[in-house]
This record gives sequence, C-alpha cells and structure tokens, in this order.
Amino acid sequence: MAKVMEFSLSKEFLDRFQLALNEREDAFIKESLEGINPADITALLDEFNAEECKYVFDLLPVEVDAAILNDLDEDEREQFIEHFTPKELAGYIECLDSDDGADILYQMPLKRREEVIRLIENEEKAGHILDLLRYDEDVAGGLMAKELIKANVNWTVQQCIEEIRKQAENVQKIYSVYVVDNKDKFLGRVSLKRIILADDKVKIGDLYDADIISVETSMDEVEVATIMEKYDLEAVPVLNARGKLVGRITIDDIVDVIKELADEERQIMAGISADVEEDDTVWKLSKARLPWLTIGMAGGLLGAQFMGLFKGDIAIIPALAFFIPLITATGGNVGIQSSSIVVQSLANPNVFAERLWRRMIKVLFVAVVNGVILALMVFGAVILVNRDQSLAFTVSAALFSVVLLASLMGTITPLILDKFGINPALASGPFITTTNDLLGLAVYFSVAHLLYQL
Amino acid sequence: MAKVMEFSLSKEFLDRFQLALNEREDAFIKESLEGINPADITALLDEFNAEECKYVFDLLPVEVDAAILNDLDEDEREQFIEHFTPKELAGYIECLDSDDGADILYQMPLKRREEVIRLIENEEKAGHILDLLRYDEDVAGGLMAKELIKANVNWTVQQCIEEIRKQAENVQKIYSVYVVDNKDKFLGRVSLKRIILADDKVKIGDLYDADIISVETSMDEVEVATIMEKYDLEAVPVLNARGKLVGRITIDDIVDVIKELADEERQIMAGISADVEEDDTVWKLSKARLPWLTIGMAGGLLGAQFMGLFKGDIAIIPALAFFIPLITATGGNVGIQSSSIVVQSLANPNVFAERLWRRMIKVLFVAVVNGVILALMVFGAVILVNRDQSLAFTVSAALFSVVLLASLMGTITPLILDKFGINPALASGPFITTTNDLLGLAVYFSVAHLLYQL
Repeated sequence: MAKVMEFSLSKEFLDRFQLALNEREDAFIKESLEGINPADITALLDEFNAEECKYVFDLLPVEVDAAILNDLDEDEREQFIEHFTPKELAGYIECLDSDDGADILYQMPLKRREEVIRLIENEEKAGHILDLLRYDEDVAGGLMAKELIKANVNWTVQQCIEEIRKQAENVQKIYSVYVVDNKDKFLGRVSLKRIILADDKVKIGDLYDADIISVETSMDEVEVATIMEKYDLEAVPVLNARGKLVGRITIDDIVDVIKELADEERQIMAGISADVEEDDTVWKLSKARLPWLTIGMAGGLLGAQFMGLFKGDIAIIPALAFFIPLITATGGNVGIQSSSIVVQSLANPNVFAERLWRRMIKVLFVAVVNGVILALMVFGAVILVNRDQSLAFTVSAALFSVVLLASLMGTITPLILDKFGINPALASGPFITTTNDLLGLAVYFSVAHLLYQL
Repeated sequence: MAKVMEFSLSKEFLDRFQLALNEREDAFIKESLEGINPADITALLDEFNAEECKYVFDLLPVEVDAAILNDLDEDEREQFIEHFTPKELAGYIECLDSDDGADILYQMPLKRREEVIRLIENEEKAGHILDLLRYDEDVAGGLMAKELIKANVNWTVQQCIEEIRKQAENVQKIYSVYVVDNKDKFLGRVSLKRIILADDKVKIGDLYDADIISVETSMDEVEVATIMEKYDLEAVPVLNARGKLVGRITIDDIVDVIKELADEERQIMAGISADVEEDDTVWKLSKARLPWLTIGMAGGLLGAQFMGLFKGDIAIIPALAFFIPLITATGGNVGIQSSSIVVQSLANPNVFAERLWRRMIKVLFVAVVNGVILALMVFGAVILVNRDQSLAFTVSAALFSVVLLASLMGTITPLILDKFGINPALASGPFITTTNDLLGLAVYFSVAHLLYQL
C-alpha cells in the first residue's frame, strides 16, 4: 500500500524550507518531501531560484525529479535544464513516457539533444524518442506516446494479460489494449474491463471492438482535441499513413492543448504578441506589447492626418470633436463583439456552416437592430444636452453607419484570416479596433461634411 | 466483436437523408444510421428541425437516442426535450449515467421534472438522480456521477472482480476501483491494471494506493478542473463532508468545463452579456450585445460633455482634436493588454503570488518602457508632419501619462473584480476601454490646457 501524503503549502513551511536550503539541511529537505506528489513539489520549487531547485533535485529520487521536470512550465524548464549534465538529463528522460521525454529534448540545442539521446541506456526508449522527434510538436505524431499495450488479434486473453504484465512498468496508465493483425495493422481495441471479465481462454479476436476512432500522425493537435472531445475519449490510437499502430495520445496531453489554445487566444485578443506571463522580465513583457501598441499608434497618427482634412469643419463647429471617442469606441466594441461570435463558431464548428451570404444578412439584421437603438438614444441625448439638431443628426447617422460597417468588418475579418490559416482571434484584437477607428472617423467626418454642407 | 461504422457527412448524403425524411422512408433512415456513433448522428441531426429530429428519434434504439440527447448542445436540448412525453424522457434518462440524466432534468420545469423522475423504473438510478439534483450544477456534487466501482478494503481481488461483473452494465468506463472501509469511508483506489496482474486471493487492503487526491461535493468546478489537470487524473473520487465516497467525476466532464470557461471568457472580453452563438435569433444576438454597447455609448456621451469644457481650446487649436483617437485607442490597448496578463495569472495561479506592491512596481516599469518608446515615436512623427513643437510635446506627454494610467487601471481592475468574486475577464472588455477613454481624454486636455497655457 503506497501512501501519498497530503500537502498544503504554507508561508511557515516555505520559510522553514528556505532556511533548510540556506543551511544545507539535507535531512530536513528529504524528509519533508518524502511521499509528496511531484506536482506539489513542482509548485513548491516555483518559489525558489534555479540553484536552489538544483540542490533539491540532487537530494530527490530520480523518478521524482523526472516527474517534476515534466510538470514544469515550458519557459521555466528551458532555462532550468541548462543546469544539468547530459548524463543527468538522460537519466530523467529514461523515467518518463517517450512523449514527455521528447518534449524536453525539443527544448535543447541540436548538439546537446543528440548527446543526451546517446546517453539513454534503455535502447527501446531511445528508439521511441528518436521516432517521436521526427514529428512537429503540434501534430498527433508529436503528441503521442509510444508506450501502449498491443495485442495480436489471434492471442487469447491469457496471452494478453501476460503482455500487460511484461509492459506494466513501461505503460503507466492502461485504458485499453490495442488490437493489431500479424502485420501490425490496427484493428480495434478491447477495454481492460472486458479483459478482466472474460475467460482466460477467449480469443482477443472475439472480444475486441473494431473501433474506427483513430487519428493519423499528421493530424493537427486542434483536430485531435476536437475528436477526443466529441467522442469523450480518454485515449486515442495514432496510426501512420499505412494504418500501422504507432502510438497513442492520452487525454491529459489534450487538456494541456486545450488550455494552451485558450491562453493563446486570450493573448491574441489582447494584442500581446508572445507567450508572456506576469513573472517574465520587464523587457520581455514590454517587447511582447510594443508591436500592437505601435500599430495602434500608427493608426492613430493616420487618423490624425485624415482629420487634418476637416480642420476647417472642426474650427467652425468644435462640438464635432466631442463625439469622436463615442464613434470610435462604439465601432471598436461592435467590431470585437462581431468577430468574437465568429471566432466562437470557428472554434465549435458545425458540420455545415450556414452559407456566407446568409450569415452576412443575419449580421446586418443584428447590426440594424443595435444601430437603430443606439442611434435613437444618442439622438435624444444630443438634442437634450447640446440642443443642436444638425449635430444630433450627424452623430446618430454616423453612429448608425459605423455600427453597420464595424459589424461587417468584424464578421468578415476572422473568416478571411481563418481561410489563410491565421488564428481568427487576431480579428478580435487591436487590429480590428484600429481599422474601425479609421473607418469610423471617415464615416463621421464625411457625414458631418455632407449634412452641415460645410 | 462490435463494429462501429466510419461516417463522414457529405452534402449528397444530407440531401438524400432529407428526401428520406420527406418521404418517410423509415427503412433507409434506420439502415443508414445503424452502427453509427451517436456523436456523429448528433452532428447529422444538427442540420434538421425539431420535428424531423423527433421523427428520427422514434426510429432509433432508445440507448442511441439517450446518447444523442446527452450530446446535444444545452440550448438545443432545452427546446428539443419539450417534444417528448415524460415517459419517453424517463426511458432515455434510464440509459444514461446519473450525472448526464441529472443534467437533462435540470433543464425542465420543476413539475415536469418530478413527473419524469417518478416514471424512472430503475429505483437505484432514480435515487442516484434525486441525490445529484440536490447540488448546484457548478460544484463537484453537480458534476459527479454516482456510478462507480466500490470495493471493501477487506475483500479479495476475486470478490472485487465479482463486483465489477455485477456493475459492468452500470459503469461504462472503469478507471479505478475505489476502496472504502466498513463504514463507506473512502480509503484510496486500486487501478484495473493492478487488479488484472494480482493473484485472485490477494486482499484489496494490500493492493490499494492510499490516495489523498479527492474532492468534496461542495468544491467549485473550476477548482476541480485545476486539481484534475495538475495531477493528470482521468477520474477523481468525490467525498461528502464526512469523508464518505459519494461519486466520481470523469475527465470528459472536466474537458467540457474547461471549454465552457474559455467560451465564457471570450464572450466577456468581447462585451457580450449572454451565452449566444452565431445561430441564435437576431433578437437574442442583439439583446446580448446592447448592454455593453449602451454603457460604451454612455461613456462616449460623458466624454463629449467633458470635452465641452475645452471647447475654446479646440476652436483655437483644431489640431488638438486630431489626436483624440490616438490617445483613447492607446489607452484602450494598453489597458486590455495589462488586464489580460493579470487574468492569465489568475487562471494559472502560483501558490504564492508576488505581493501587490511588487506587482505594481513591475507594471509601472513595463509601462514606463512602453510609454517612453511610444511617446518618442509620436513626438518625432508630429514634429515631422505637423511641424508644431507644442503640439508634439502635448501629445507625447499625454500619451505617456495615458500608458501609465491605463497600465495601472488594467492591472488593478481585474484584481479587484476577482476579490469580489466577479469574473476578472470583465476587466479586459468594453468596461476598461470606456474608463480608459475617459481617463485618456481628461489627461490629454489637462496637459494641453497646461502646456498651451490657454
């Protein structure tokens, strides 16, 4: 009976642990971390610097170190692994599933990577990892692990259990046994439950589900996530182009993919151009934010030049200037709303999406409803407060046009980006606000010029 | 050997199926859907109206119907179930896991719900569902299923396998067997793999992991998701306040939670106030968008009144108006960037977040770096194009101040919202843009007034 300790991180423990590190109290460190889930140790080590973490690593069993290394945030790991010798890294990677090992190797310079692989003693593991490194990180082949339980269709349940016994150490979590023919071609799967309940002499061939839910090595990770989600799978077999079983992807990796995609989308929507976190350096954070800010600023400068054309109008009717923020802000808000609804549809695709023109007509309807209501409210407000009918008419007419234009832009832009393989969430970011600012200004001043007959 | 058919939805098949529906070709409908995964049938039925779907339902086996009902989008299901009699619904719910059955019952008016439960023939299932309905939908108790395999710590492996055999029909996916003492208190779990490999006479007590990773019925779904993700769990046992095992949550439900949270965050960031999708009605879509647009507009009107105070300045120097969009847009962009970085931190919490003042100092540093760079660029641009030193100085000084202010606002707002239990993503939406517009205008015109000594 293995006992896993309950562990909650308190400020007191943290201070005590820091003291132990300073004083090199190896006994205390080892004792207080014994039996703790590696995921909890990872959270603890988050609070210390690389040298201190390295010191703790040297005191822990190699399997625990490997699990922690695997749990680390990618950015942190990239820096942390520089502190280890190739020999040490090979030892850790040997303790991990091939896909997790490959993930760590991806983060090293090519030369170091080769050196580490050469030092992996388990030939099979090294072969698996070399196999995996051939794939891009964001396709099924790059996500899969080579470790799985494979049974020949002609085996009996007894033979299958023997195979499970042989592989028990290599394959941590067994959900199903995958069934192949003599040529290793994938045929289907049989659940552990069914194996437990079947008689030892039953043939696997009479027991398995001829399951067609599998993915190909080249399938994009987003598509893999969609399939696993749609069919509620906890693992999916990966086949090569010739139908041979080459690996499996488990749901924990897919949960990570889903989270990463959500983080990425949030950053794109917010106009942050790199994967940054609050605890990155000031310079890295600034650099990630500058590109979009600069583009926004360039848009603003362009807008300023454009308004220069209407300098005379503003001099005569300064009140025109008052409503610039109203127009640009509404354009921006409408644009972001529209694009995010499209992004939502693209993320949860229907098999047959409505045709483009039907979509557009609907978008226009919604825009007209919103535009009319907003325009009426603004008209009333300007009449009440500014008591200027021409101004009220100008502002509300411009607002109505901006709502329409921004809705169309916000709908079309993500669709176009998606067509070109660019993340459509980009359309919900500063890009659409900048474009809509310019469009809004053009509409506003054109309407004003026309109505005032300046 | 069960065979699941490969199925891909083509326009041709869809047309043919529509024809079959029009002509009531029951044989074709039954034949073409036989052996198809229910998730694929759900996707197919998405293309037809409620009456047509109901017609198909009456032709399919009850278990398939139940699975489809479970797969449906919540909005669609709420409308669709109105087409069924309580008797029919009770039949479907009987085929589902208790948590999925409870989800469907949640969507009915109370009276109908009671009627359906009364008609469920399986007493145990009805009891399970009544149990689950006591919990909120967004806590562990509302997510868990009652179906699980439970073994007494004193049993042998053989007895445990007998229990699995008895429950095999009720529990579709068995990941682990949960171990309890004589009082049903949760002790730990033993994986199916270990049961397969153990001798039949071994005691469960000698085999199980005393696992402390469990959740309480009242735990929020977000916390459950965090725990399952952190420890890479495919299922987690749920205990009541007294440590008794009452259910388990499987990873497929958590994947749904993660996806829903991401969708919700996207809508909040975009300023959409309800859970809408592209295929909702025009009126529902408009209504979801109006609240934030109205608030944004109110902000714009307030801004207009504020600028009225500087009417004289604008009349004398119309060029001041030109840079309003630049100032407000940059403020908005900086605010959204800052808040989304905080939202990211809140979504992926560190155990000990940095102290508030350290965070703020860092935010200020980043703001100063970005502010200085942007201000210098704008200064150069205005000098070059407008050849007006006072204007260049005014605009760049205001821009710098706005970047600083917007960074602080963007950082503090989500933290405050989070403290009050409000979704912090709200701070990345129209709220922050509107506030920053007003702040930006105030800074801009104050600086201008001061520098020009108007």
